[in-house]
Amino acid sequence: MIYFDNAATTLVKPPRVAEAVVQAMQSMGNCGRGSHPCSRFAAGAVDEARIKLAAFFGCKRADHVVFTQNATQALNMALYGLLGTGDHVISTVAEHNSVLRPLYRLQREVGLELDLIPADEKGTLRLELLPKLLKPNTKAVVCTHISNLTGNITDLETIRRFTAAHQLLLVVDAAQSAGYLPIHMEQMGIDILCVTGHKGLMGPQGTGALLLREELDLRPLCTGGTGVQSYLREQPAQLPEHLEAGTLNAHGIAGLSAAIDYLNDLSLERIRQQEDSLTARFYEGVQKIPGVRVYGDFSRPHGPIVSLNLGSWDSGAVSDALAEDYGIATRPGAHCAPLMHMALGTEVQGAVRFSFCYHNTEEEIDTAICAIAQLAAE
Amino acid sequence: MIYFDNAATTLVKPPRVAEAVVQAMQSMGNCGRGSHPCSRFAAGAVDEARIKLAAFFGCKRADHVVFTQNATQALNMALYGLLGTGDHVISTVAEHNSVLRPLYRLQREVGLELDLIPADEKGTLRLELLPKLLKPNTKAVVCTHISNLTGNITDLETIRRFTAAHQLLLVVDAAQSAGYLPIHMEQMGIDILCVTGHKGLMGPQGTGALLLREELDLRPLCTGGTGVQSYLREQPAQLPEHLEAGTLNAHGIAGLSAAIDYLNDLSLERIRQQEDSLTARFYEGVQKIPGVRVYGDFSRPHGPIVSLNLGSWDSGAVSDALAEDYGIATRPGAHCAPLMHMALGTEVQGAVRFSFCYHNTEEEIDTAICAIAQLAAE
Repeated sequence: MIYFDNAATTLVKPPRVAEAVVQAMQSMGNCGRGSHPCSRFAAGAVDEARIKLAAFFGCKRADHVVFTQNATQALNMALYGLLGTGDHVISTVAEHNSVLRPLYRLQREVGLELDLIPADEKGTLRLELLPKLLKPNTKAVVCTHISNLTGNITDLETIRRFTAAHQLLLVVDAAQSAGYLPIHMEQMGIDILCVTGHKGLMGPQGTGALLLREELDLRPLCTGGTGVQSYLREQPAQLPEHLEAGTLNAHGIAGLSAAIDYLNDLSLERIRQQEDSLTARFYEGVQKIPGVRVYGDFSRPHGPIVSLNLGSWDSGAVSDALAEDYGIATRPGAHCAPLMHMALGTEVQGAVRFSFCYHNTEEEIDTAICAIAQLAAE
Repeated sequence: MIYFDNAATTLVKPPRVAEAVVQAMQSMGNCGRGSHPCSRFAAGAVDEARIKLAAFFGCKRADHVVFTQNATQALNMALYGLLGTGDHVISTVAEHNSVLRPLYRLQREVGLELDLIPADEKGTLRLELLPKLLKPNTKAVVCTHISNLTGNITDLETIRRFTAAHQLLLVVDAAQSAGYLPIHMEQMGIDILCVTGHKGLMGPQGTGALLLREELDLRPLCTGGTGVQSYLREQPAQLPEHLEAGTLNAHGIAGLSAAIDYLNDLSLERIRQQEDSLTARFYEGVQKIPGVRVYGDFSRPHGPIVSLNLGSWDSGAVSDALAEDYGIATRPGAHCAPLMHMALGTEVQGAVRFSFCYHNTEEEIDTAICAIAQLAAE
């Protein structure tokens, strides 16, 4: 199996990740609940993971790293926690449903005002329209760092200048960029960063985080036990407890912590070079095959994702043929990115998404190019 | 280390649980996202876990098993999803903050009406007061199955008769009972059951579930990607997708699935007999030590939890002495159960909680009894 579905989840995890999870499962108590060695071991490992994630993403305070189940939970926490009646928010058509559906719901239920930045036919966001979308009650810009469909990288520097000029909050969905692009919240003016652990960070499923700029407050999504201030009727005000209710996935967090070590040891730059090289090789190979249509803008900064179609074939049929006849795993269909498909005109056909990771090889890329050429010739 | 903090999390997991997690981490794609073998393997494993949990808890439909991060998330999903303005709900003073805080918040924010069943000095709920608490707008009774402080088992049959007679919903927090007491939702008239995977079920942290009676609908807590019906602006109506947004913790769920196999192989009855025998031995041993005060009612059905105090010693100091001088892990303080501590008069002192699991031994129990006798004699 050649695995090119890394934008859904990375399949190959560094061996130390599973080792850390197993060790955690054999020796961890409940973190933050009790002071005996098993609890303290769990609490220490979780705190260490917070410190590592804060450093990795340029978040000033480790106690502002809030662990979640996945990026979706982090995004729900950010959007429901931040936005309400009377607010206006600017987002983009490149968003995943993990951003769109919470925003739509806030629109329906509490009258949130929402505007979306459109994209051109290559999926590039038309950021020059930002000033036109500004309203007196605009509170935040919410955007994905890399489109999970086209692989286009969002020009966050342009957005940062806009949010800084108008005192808006900047909320970034880094589900596709964490573990690939360097991210420094302070330097990049990001107020809330939402990440998942199981994609580019190569950690276990069931892990994710919301990282919060200092002095920013969010209404909790869930409330419950925190192990501290148990007599309060509301969630304690202190972070991370304010936003973390119930037992954390400390087993998974231990794995994520080991994954961050792996990324640091290897260096993000080396990972990116490898992924960029594979992506360029694949793009060069497929874009000249007759009948192949590649989406996205490869003349600008681009992530390790290439989506394409063969003629008018249904993307699901192409993906099935790749899996069954060539042992190549891709992802067809809508990718939970309805508005970007509409911008590209692919809402009926879908698209076949190839997404790469550090562990993929040039041989795998070449095999896939040959497979596509053969299918296109049929 | 003698580990008696199993009500916080079980420390000893069956070896097959970690094995299943490792296997999942080495071979699973993203469940429900794509149709290649790695995704299908993940989706199949998650579906299998749903079927096992539905059978284990007498839930009619496997697709009404909704995976969550922990019991707290399941309870938040149940309470925020079910209750709103104009509703009245009856709960109990035995509840954990995972129930109390969401209810208090609904009280503050949307005017939910809340009444709590009080307890006597042994922590037994005064269920004879139920009829007095009934109002025309009463929608549900929400209660814990076993108090995480006293270990008292709630008389769910009395509550079921009440909810059935008045067409109320019954929501049960089974965080302490799942994996110890047999639970059959249909037979016991439970409409929503909330469980965690990492306590009595002996699964990994980061797993839990909400099980829903057929035909009951909940407003989603989180919204986002579902891998199906991506062009809908709202969460799809079908379960489990309606309540599950984002990538599931399929690695953890694989471990939980293996844990359920272990429980079924061993039989819940055998587990309960062992835990009951250890609990009785411990209770008999400590209750006659001068200066020891044991909480809870041991003349009625009782779970594998014994909380006590030594004279007027702070519970934290006793727990620390047990950990440092005897290598015994317990949990002192408030246990996120503020109202039960107030009912027992222990809100200042807290209590030292001993909680047992199948893997504890009589020797461990006897060591702990001797340790308490020595500390009490000081």
